Amino acid sequence: MAVIGGSVIGLACAWSAARTKLATEVVIYEPDESGPDGVPAAAAAWVAGGMLAPFSEAWPGEEAVFALGVDSLRRWPDMLDALEPYVPPGPPVRTATHTHMLAVDEADARDLDMAMEWAARQPDSTDADLRRITRRELREAEPSLARVARAAYRMDSEGAVDNRVLLAALTRACRAEGVRWVRSAVTSLDDVDADRIVLAAGSGSAELAGLPVRPVKGEVLRLRARPGCEDPPRGVVRAFVRGRPLYLVPRDGGLVVGATQYEHGDDRQVTVAGVRDLLADAETIFPGIGEYELAEAIAGLRPMSPDNLPFLGADPTGPRVIHATGHGRNGIALTPVTVAAVWAALHAVRGPAAARAAAPDRFARG
Amino acid sequence: MAVIGGSVIGLACAWSAARTKLATEVVIYEPDESGPDGVPAAAAAWVAGGMLAPFSEAWPGEEAVFALGVDSLRRWPDMLDALEPYVPPGPPVRTATHTHMLAVDEADARDLDMAMEWAARQPDSTDADLRRITRRELREAEPSLARVARAAYRMDSEGAVDNRVLLAALTRACRAEGVRWVRSAVTSLDDVDADRIVLAAGSGSAELAGLPVRPVKGEVLRLRARPGCEDPPRGVVRAFVRGRPLYLVPRDGGLVVGATQYEHGDDRQVTVAGVRDLLADAETIFPGIGEYELAEAIAGLRPMSPDNLPFLGADPTGPRVIHATGHGRNGIALTPVTVAAVWAALHAVRGPAAARAAAPDRFARG
Repeated sequence: MAVIGGSVIGLACAWSAARTKLATEVVIYEPDESGPDGVPAAAAAWVAGGMLAPFSEAWPGEEAVFALGVDSLRRWPDMLDALEPYVPPGPPVRTATHTHMLAVDEADARDLDMAMEWAARQPDSTDADLRRITRRELREAEPSLARVARAAYRMDSEGAVDNRVLLAALTRACRAEGVRWVRSAVTSLDDVDADRIVLAAGSGSAELAGLPVRPVKGEVLRLRARPGCEDPPRGVVRAFVRGRPLYLVPRDGGLVVGATQYEHGDDRQVTVAGVRDLLADAETIFPGIGEYELAEAIAGLRPMSPDNLPFLGADPTGPRVIHATGHGRNGIALTPVTVAAVWAALHAVRGPAAARAAAPDRFARG
Repeated sequence: MAVIGGSVIGLACAWSAARTKLATEVVIYEPDESGPDGVPAAAAAWVAGGMLAPFSEAWPGEEAVFALGVDSLRRWPDMLDALEPYVPPGPPVRTATHTHMLAVDEADARDLDMAMEWAARQPDSTDADLRRITRRELREAEPSLARVARAAYRMDSEGAVDNRVLLAALTRACRAEGVRWVRSAVTSLDDVDADRIVLAAGSGSAELAGLPVRPVKGEVLRLRARPGCEDPPRGVVRAFVRGRPLYLVPRDGGLVVGATQYEHGDDRQVTVAGVRDLLADAETIFPGIGEYELAEAIAGLRPMSPDNLPFLGADPTGPRVIHATGHGRNGIALTPVTVAAVWAALHAVRGPAAARAAAPDRFARG
């Protein structure tokens, strides 16, 4: 079996296939080995915030996206347990176990209330998943934030993983199960010598399989705490500031600030304007940020689909190629449900119900 | 002969000694070979803007600093000519041949006029070195700048060099003259097996020779032009913005923006606040900056002395050790006069008159 693409989705699918003895040989095709331990540092997952956040990303009309995200969120504890033996010494995979979501101005607060009321009405939501909180509750939970929230919510089932620790753990898990890597680029699926192919090539999937996946650039900053600086937030903090979405995600010794969004094609340069806006918006929410070290400013290409759902399942032309791509901003969050959907497709059994809306033939049907 | 420190001052002094056959063997002690071609990328010169700017840095009361800077500026053309054979293929050493200096608010404009009137009265100044210009003249010379100047000056004898090309050329020049490198740190001058020692260890000089040199951190940004973005300024642009000094220095395909200044000791981390302020101040002067790539944000330690003059000449205890350190923000600008002063000290002849104020015993005298 061949897996095209060795970032988070490809690694997780390869590991799943290898540990369940689905194939005698599992090979990952991934030319990029520029990160530590050979992980692909040009991939979107290397840049990502790593939030597991279907509730705080809920948006009316995106019922299928929401259901897929909630399904995947419920699968994360099992995946973390299974990965535990492979986590390298150092910080853990999980870096946060809740989210606070806030809005700074009146218009943003109205939008936030509207979206959260919609999310609360969805069949998969529970009271533990999201609730509106008072400003006093927010202050007590996250005392380092500025007192600028007009509306605030808390999500107790959400959280975040350290994207780089996750990639390292998945790499070690794959190695332990005998997965092999081929360090060359695949330019046509016809060239791949394998009975079954899992396509997990992110924004490279458009060219390989004719899927409507486009690259959307996102910039993030990685900050490190310096002696004497304000403690970072305890959990994930998301906000709308001046109409722009912002997140602060805890990391061992620091935090990740994101993210901008541009439709610029294949462009991974960090711009002055992107950094300027992220710093200004982050400082509005968390004034202590000025004393942090700006350790990295990086950009990644998110593989976006037209309806914000990924492509999960067999190619319309036949069962040789299984798609696991087009995850947009949610590649890490959707990894467990993607693994389940791919496993089902490889066995030709029914996969997760929530993954049906992500069938690869949905744009061809009409 | 041993040269302690292999950044711009050490390289230039070693090259001078080797090409004039001053010693049968010239050895540079420099443990840091982290930059391309083995240049020391942790040194202040790797981070520097590379401005040659005694007029735009003039400040009343600093007569000796000014005279030393003007002396060095007049020596730069000869040094560039001598270096020419060693410049690697690619961009030239010299990246700008004039400076515009401007002030944004009334208080800054008053200070600027006061400083420039003082500079114009100094014996070494000529009309070609600095003149007040109108806003219209500034617009014609630098059309991409915002129209925010309350006062503006033009310096036609100033300019800038590309600090990294300069380091590469000096390294090649040293190699061509047979200079050797020892890649270990010197912790005591007593351990150095050489008749003569040139101490060019920057902020490391305090510990080695008991000189009052302290590290002052400075952050700079390196920006690269992206397709369709506004052209960078044609020459060096310096300004006072919100009371803070700012410079924009052209580089091949981009520009350098600097610089912050902190008395934080041995700290080379880039801070969020530093980047935020540099971006905001730069955008005030040059609004097109938002579309540039933020290619690097880096910090260096400038070796500052109490009176902003370097230490040039023999140690008070005897002629074995020649000091060439404590150049503060002006290590690159003062390289030619430093080479001349060191060469004179090694030959026990009179050096440049302007270098006398930089005698190493000046704080011990009283």
